[in-house]
Amino acid sequence: MLPAHLFIVFGATGDLMQRKLLPALYDMLLQDGAQSTYAILGVSRSKLTDEAFREQARASLVEFAGLSEETAQSFCAQSLYYQCLGDQEADDFQTLAARVQELEQRHDLPGNRAIYLSLPPQAFEPTINNLGRCGLNESPGWTRLVIEKPFGRDLATAQALNEVVHRHYREDQVYRIDHYLGKETVKNLLVFRFGNALFEPLWNRDHVERVDIMVTEALGVGTRAGYYDRSGALRDMIQNHLTQLFTLVAMEPPASTEANAIRYEKIKVLESTMPIHAERDVVFGQYTDGTVEGTAIPGYLDSEGVPGDSQTETYAALRLHVNNWRWQGVPFVLQTGKAMPRRLTRVSVTFRRPPVRLFQSDNDCYLASNVLHLTIQPDEGVALNFEVKVPEQGYRVQTHQLSFDYADIFGHVPDAYRTLLEDVVKGDQTLFVHEREVMESWNLYTPLLENGPAPHPYPAGSWGPSEANSLIQDAPIQS
Amino acid sequence: MLPAHLFIVFGATGDLMQRKLLPALYDMLLQDGAQSTYAILGVSRSKLTDEAFREQARASLVEFAGLSEETAQSFCAQSLYYQCLGDQEADDFQTLAARVQELEQRHDLPGNRAIYLSLPPQAFEPTINNLGRCGLNESPGWTRLVIEKPFGRDLATAQALNEVVHRHYREDQVYRIDHYLGKETVKNLLVFRFGNALFEPLWNRDHVERVDIMVTEALGVGTRAGYYDRSGALRDMIQNHLTQLFTLVAMEPPASTEANAIRYEKIKVLESTMPIHAERDVVFGQYTDGTVEGTAIPGYLDSEGVPGDSQTETYAALRLHVNNWRWQGVPFVLQTGKAMPRRLTRVSVTFRRPPVRLFQSDNDCYLASNVLHLTIQPDEGVALNFEVKVPEQGYRVQTHQLSFDYADIFGHVPDAYRTLLEDVVKGDQTLFVHEREVMESWNLYTPLLENGPAPHPYPAGSWGPSEANSLIQDAPIQS
Repeated sequence: MLPAHLFIVFGATGDLMQRKLLPALYDMLLQDGAQSTYAILGVSRSKLTDEAFREQARASLVEFAGLSEETAQSFCAQSLYYQCLGDQEADDFQTLAARVQELEQRHDLPGNRAIYLSLPPQAFEPTINNLGRCGLNESPGWTRLVIEKPFGRDLATAQALNEVVHRHYREDQVYRIDHYLGKETVKNLLVFRFGNALFEPLWNRDHVERVDIMVTEALGVGTRAGYYDRSGALRDMIQNHLTQLFTLVAMEPPASTEANAIRYEKIKVLESTMPIHAERDVVFGQYTDGTVEGTAIPGYLDSEGVPGDSQTETYAALRLHVNNWRWQGVPFVLQTGKAMPRRLTRVSVTFRRPPVRLFQSDNDCYLASNVLHLTIQPDEGVALNFEVKVPEQGYRVQTHQLSFDYADIFGHVPDAYRTLLEDVVKGDQTLFVHEREVMESWNLYTPLLENGPAPHPYPAGSWGPSEANSLIQDAPIQS
Repeated sequence: MLPAHLFIVFGATGDLMQRKLLPALYDMLLQDGAQSTYAILGVSRSKLTDEAFREQARASLVEFAGLSEETAQSFCAQSLYYQCLGDQEADDFQTLAARVQELEQRHDLPGNRAIYLSLPPQAFEPTINNLGRCGLNESPGWTRLVIEKPFGRDLATAQALNEVVHRHYREDQVYRIDHYLGKETVKNLLVFRFGNALFEPLWNRDHVERVDIMVTEALGVGTRAGYYDRSGALRDMIQNHLTQLFTLVAMEPPASTEANAIRYEKIKVLESTMPIHAERDVVFGQYTDGTVEGTAIPGYLDSEGVPGDSQTETYAALRLHVNNWRWQGVPFVLQTGKAMPRRLTRVSVTFRRPPVRLFQSDNDCYLASNVLHLTIQPDEGVALNFEVKVPEQGYRVQTHQLSFDYADIFGHVPDAYRTLLEDVVKGDQTLFVHEREVMESWNLYTPLLENGPAPHPYPAGSWGPSEANSLIQDAPIQS
C-alpha cells in the first residue's frame, strides 16, 4: 500500500497533467487498492472552481485513460481539488499553504506531500522560492519536489536553478524527472548487466570495441519548432536521455540497488569522461526537406517559428572517451536526430573480433564482430549477433541473431509516468537524476553549446549528414 | 568437382548400404554435377550378378532417396557394379583386385579408391589383411579405408585392430566413421566457439561452473537387444559419441582448421582427463518396464535375446575431470540412456552465478546461472538462458531465453552420411576419428568396462535412476 499523501500538481490545466499525469495517478492509486488514502490538488493561474477542474479532469480520464464516465466522475469527486494561484504573489502561496492543511485535515493525511512542477522553465525559480517562503518545503511527514526537464539550459543556468532549489529543499527531497528513465530501461539495463554473470566479464576495454547509443525520431519538429530552435539536439536529447543511457551502460557495479549507490556510479562515469574535442569528435546536422515513412516533411528552416538562418542542430553525433580502467580507448558514440528513417532507441555493444581468422565468412574478408543490441524503443528487446556455420558449405559463416523480445513474454509494459509517480510517493530516487549528474553533464556539453560546429544539411528521411560517417562508419548496421 | 574415383563398398547388400550409403552416394555424385567421373563397386558374399545388384539398388534408391524409377535405373546402369567374394579367400581378393583395375580402365579412372567397410566387427581383421595382401592398400592415385564403428570393444581389441589396419594402411588413409560427427555438429561447434569472440573468454574454469553433455533416446533396445547386451551404454554411446562432443567442447583453439590440427586438440583433452573414479563419479542404470511417449515399453531384461541376469547398462552418467589450465575443477557430466522421456542431444554450459546478489529473483533465494544450451538433436539450435527483469515489479527477475533455431534459418540439414562420404572422396579427415582419439578414449573407459558399478533399475520413461541425482542434481533443467 502506498503511504497516505497529498499529490500537488503545478500547471494542473496543462497538457502533461491532462494527458499523462492524471491517467498515471489514477492507475497508481487504484491499482494499489482502494485502501490508499490520498488527495490530489491541482494548482494553476486559471480561475477555476473545484467543480470546473473536476469536469476537465473527468473528460481527460475518459479520453486518455479510457475510463467510463462513472468511474472518472467518482474518482474526481472523491479526491480532486483545485487551487488558483493568481499572479503567484506571496499571498497566493499563503492561501495555498492553508488549503493544503485544510485538505490534509479533511482526508486525514499525515502531511506527506509530493509537489510536481509541470511548469515552463522560467516559472521554476519564482515558484520554488514562493514554496519555500510559505513553508511548503517541510511538513510533519515528507515533502518531495518533482521537477520536469529542462533542468537549466547550460552549466550556469543549471547551477543557478540548483541554488534556488537547495535554498529550500534538501537533495533527498528533489526528484528530477527524465521520463526516459521510467521506461523500465534503467532497471532492465541494471538487471541485464548485474543479474547475469555472462556479460560483465566481457564489459570492458579488453573485449569491447565500441559502444553505440542511438535515439532517432521519425518526426520533424512540427509545431514545436519555436521551442526547439532555442534548444537543439544537444540540449533536448544528448544532455539528458542519451547521457543517462551512456552512464548506465558504462557504470561500475553499484554496491547496492539503493538510489544513491546507483547514481553515484553514474556520476563517476561522467567524471571520468574526457572533455569533448569539438573538431574531431562532433558532427551536427540540420534536416532539409525530404520524405519519412512516405510522408513529405518540410526542411527545418522552413518550419514555422524557425529563423531562416538558424544554426540549431536537429542531429548530433559525438564520440565520448571514458578515461578509466574499464573503458580507456573504447569509443562511446552517441547519435540522435529528428526526421530520420524511423524511431529507434538502442544501445549496441560491439565486441572485438576473434584474434585469429579460422573460418571463411560471407564476404571472405573477416568474421563479423559479435554485437549485442539492447533495444529500448519501439520494441524492447535483446539481440545478440553471432556467427553461424552455413550447412553443407564447409566452414562458410553467416551472421544470425539470438534474440529475445520483452513484449512476446510480458505483453504491455507500463507507462513511464506511472512508474515515476509511484517512485516519488514511495521515496525511491533511483530513476531520478541527481544534481551532480545534471552538473557533470552540463559541464561536459556546455563548451559545445557555446562553440559547437555548424550543422551540415541532411535530407529528412536519411540517417544524417555524410560528414558523420567518420564517427559512425564502423557502427553496427541500423536494421 | 569431386576427384574421379572408384567407390568400393564391402557389405553392399546390407541395410546401411541400401538405406544410407546409396542415397548419400547418389546425392553426392549428382549434386556435384554430371561431370564427375566415378564408378561404384558393391562387394559381398552373396552370389549376385551386376544386373541383380543394380535391380536391388534401384529399388532402394526409389524407396529411400525418393528417386523416380527412370532416374534410379539410369544411375545404376551407368555406374554400379558388383563383385562376389565367396569365402573371402586370397583368390577372391585377387579376382577383386583385377575387377577394380578393369573398372578403372573402363571408366578412365586414375586409381583413386575409397574402400568402405560396412561389415560386422569380426570381419574387419580378415578383410583388411586380405585387402593388404592383394595390393588394394595402394594405387596410382589415393586409397582410403573407411571403417564403421565399433572400433574395438575395449583398449586391447582396439589396439589389435589398429595394428592390423596399420600393417597395411597409413593413418592418413584411414577414415573411422562416427556418424554423429557428420551431423554438422563438429563444424557448428567449432564455428560457435572460435568464430565468435564473445564466448571464448568465458570458456574456462573462471567462468564455467559445469558442463553437461546429454544424449537420450526415447526408444528401448527393441530388436537390437541381442547385440546391445554385449555392448551397453558405455561402449555404444559414451566411448564414441559423447566423448566426441566432450572433446569438441573442451578443446583449445586449433592452430588451423586442418583435420590434424583439430584432432590433435581433441586428443590433448583426453590426455588431460583424469582416470575415472568409479564409485564417486559413475552411475549405471538399466530400464524396467514403463511408458515412453504414450507407448508401453517392456523392461530391458524382458527383451528378446537378453539374459535374465544381464548386468548391461542401458543408462550411464559419469563425471569427468579435465586436469588442465582451462578446466581444472569444472565437472563435465556425460549422461546417456535408452527408454528416456524423449530424444535429445545437447551440450549445456552452466556459467558461474553473479558473485553478488543485487536483485530479488523468483525463488527469492539466488539468481539463476546463465546457461548456454547447444542442442544437436532433434532441433539443432542455440539457446542462452539469462535473467530478465519482470515489468513493474521493482527488481523481480525471471529466467528467459535468447534463442536461435537452425531449421528456422536454413531449413533442411543434409544427411550425415552425405557429408562424410564427400569428405572421404575429398580427403578431409576432420570429421573422422584419429587412432589416438580411439586409444585415449578406450584407455579412459576400459577400467569401467571391467569393473563398472552394477546398474540401478529405472522405469522406462523416466530420466534415469535416482542414484544418479548426486551427479546431475545441479544440471540445468531438462526441458
